[in-house]
Amino acid sequence: MTQMKNDLYLRALKGEKVERTPIWVMRQAGRYLPEYRAVRKQAGDFLTLCKTPELACEVTMQPIDRFGLDAAILFSDILTIPDAMGLELVLEEGIGPVFNKPVRTVAEINKLGVPDAEQDLGYVMDAVRVIRKELDGRVPLIGFTGSPWTLASYMVEGSGSKEFRRIKGLMFESPAAARTLLQVVTDSVITYLKAQVAAGAQSLMVFDTWGGMLSTANYQTFSLAYMQQIVDALKTDEVTKDTPVVLFTKGGGQWLEMMADTGCDGLGLDWTVDLANAKARVGDRVVLQGNMDPVVMNTGESQVRDNAMLVLEAYGNHSGSDKGHIFNLGHGIQPFAQPDNMQALVTTVQSQSGQFHSK
Amino acid sequence: MTQMKNDLYLRALKGEKVERTPIWVMRQAGRYLPEYRAVRKQAGDFLTLCKTPELACEVTMQPIDRFGLDAAILFSDILTIPDAMGLELVLEEGIGPVFNKPVRTVAEINKLGVPDAEQDLGYVMDAVRVIRKELDGRVPLIGFTGSPWTLASYMVEGSGSKEFRRIKGLMFESPAAARTLLQVVTDSVITYLKAQVAAGAQSLMVFDTWGGMLSTANYQTFSLAYMQQIVDALKTDEVTKDTPVVLFTKGGGQWLEMMADTGCDGLGLDWTVDLANAKARVGDRVVLQGNMDPVVMNTGESQVRDNAMLVLEAYGNHSGSDKGHIFNLGHGIQPFAQPDNMQALVTTVQSQSGQFHSK
Repeated sequence: MTQMKNDLYLRALKGEKVERTPIWVMRQAGRYLPEYRAVRKQAGDFLTLCKTPELACEVTMQPIDRFGLDAAILFSDILTIPDAMGLELVLEEGIGPVFNKPVRTVAEINKLGVPDAEQDLGYVMDAVRVIRKELDGRVPLIGFTGSPWTLASYMVEGSGSKEFRRIKGLMFESPAAARTLLQVVTDSVITYLKAQVAAGAQSLMVFDTWGGMLSTANYQTFSLAYMQQIVDALKTDEVTKDTPVVLFTKGGGQWLEMMADTGCDGLGLDWTVDLANAKARVGDRVVLQGNMDPVVMNTGESQVRDNAMLVLEAYGNHSGSDKGHIFNLGHGIQPFAQPDNMQALVTTVQSQSGQFHSK
Repeated sequence: MTQMKNDLYLRALKGEKVERTPIWVMRQAGRYLPEYRAVRKQAGDFLTLCKTPELACEVTMQPIDRFGLDAAILFSDILTIPDAMGLELVLEEGIGPVFNKPVRTVAEINKLGVPDAEQDLGYVMDAVRVIRKELDGRVPLIGFTGSPWTLASYMVEGSGSKEFRRIKGLMFESPAAARTLLQVVTDSVITYLKAQVAAGAQSLMVFDTWGGMLSTANYQTFSLAYMQQIVDALKTDEVTKDTPVVLFTKGGGQWLEMMADTGCDGLGLDWTVDLANAKARVGDRVVLQGNMDPVVMNTGESQVRDNAMLVLEAYGNHSGSDKGHIFNLGHGIQPFAQPDNMQALVTTVQSQSGQFHSK
């Protein structure tokens, strides 16, 4: 393996003392970048972009080249697993993800199998390999997945949802069938993440986009319990045991203690969470990643600088008694954001965060 | 005033010992009821229904007559104030509320005035009077408003929103203008709620539907601070000082302590909040109202009964050291809910909750 030129992100994820706060941004390779829109246009559609390793690599590199972020994240989609299971993912601009063949009945659930990561999702592993080669040790590469609950929600609803009537209906009326579905998805996620690490992913993130739609009790039973299985499987596997894992439940600010209890390395925080409060609650056990309101990135550079400083100050000093902070937004950067704002953000965090890491 | 036949809800809101847990349901007068859909059809559109006191009274009474709920809530909309300010509210099925004349510029904000509650919103006060007369003391009548932040969000966005780019843009880029807007809305809300009480409302609820979209710091500055003004104004007014006030921030489960600090009487909780945890945190200071997942109402009667019991058990015993619990859903009942489920819910809570109120 090539010696890492910038391993700040990995050192921070291990809770080590670092010289400044690392920064990467959810959806950093995305529509706000003109060079991304150009490649996207060339690919024709989003899924072709995901499924063409060279193009996925190209857009993964764009924000690294342009802004000097401290980590790259695999360009892919959270719904690749259900697509590989045969649900036929369609991603259309302005509509969001849709499955041509959603899963609604017990019979349909029972037919689902665990996709082979190299055979059925080889394009993802190829993208990881191509990106690692292209990165050549500049910054670490983050692999990721959707959480079992989030994948199951899309699989049953057939698309995004506001009320989640179908998946919650399954959960309330046929909890055994819901568990069967969540288990096959969990087994698939574990296989998928292990393969990403084998292919070269250096840290992992689990996006639980819809866990925050559940009651606390149902979150524990139907979302967190399956993320726990994932953490356990990764931490007891020879290949993945040293790969840091970050869990992110959007709307999960009430549940940080139980999320930290899983034994994961870090927690992603959405922008509603008070970072100082989160640090007091779980900062001695997990690295905290986040959490500026992404809408700030649609405003002006001075707002970006001011709000970035507020986030750094909210976390405050990284001392020996806390695991530390990785800067990010509280959710993905939006298509309306200005690229200049991203530069202002990266510059602010990289130039100003050193003061919170003095001895 | 007529002697109340069932004043359980008001006694519970004062933290008194009661014989069982009272129950009412957000949007209890709504589309899930065939008799509501009939009146709605007769009215032609939703706003006409709101603006015709006799029809508003008729639909307010429907769930009381049918299910024997422990409180009635004024049938109206949270956006009546901006409508009276001249923004021209349009409510269309399947689209949600839209303002023909949203407020976007400082000049437009500066032109806004406080509507006269009896002159500009007389139809609401007339509805309160007609409903009180029709109720004839059967159960108490709840008046309500949208929170300043929620009203301002709709006024600036012009409709519902997912990202809230416009109102947050105003907040981040022109905070003084945002404060001017929030202040005129707050002054209007205070006038409006005082008039509702003068007309006969016996308790008040503030719906902060969109406060949960803010960071903790911005929630405090741009939503909670204005709800604080409302509580202060009501608690220091001779006419309203004894009228209980309930605050409900959807997605506000992280902020219960600061909400209780306002001096309100109760907090509405969405279904993501663990009721036992909320009781431990603030149950000695405020009554807790909620919080079953509304999607349960779309399933079967046995699920409704089981989940209602889980909510009652989560709050547990009402002892001398806590203010008590009022049963509700964690958000409005959905159009897809079965009326039979509402009956099962009311019967379960009214017949089973006595065990949590023994001496």
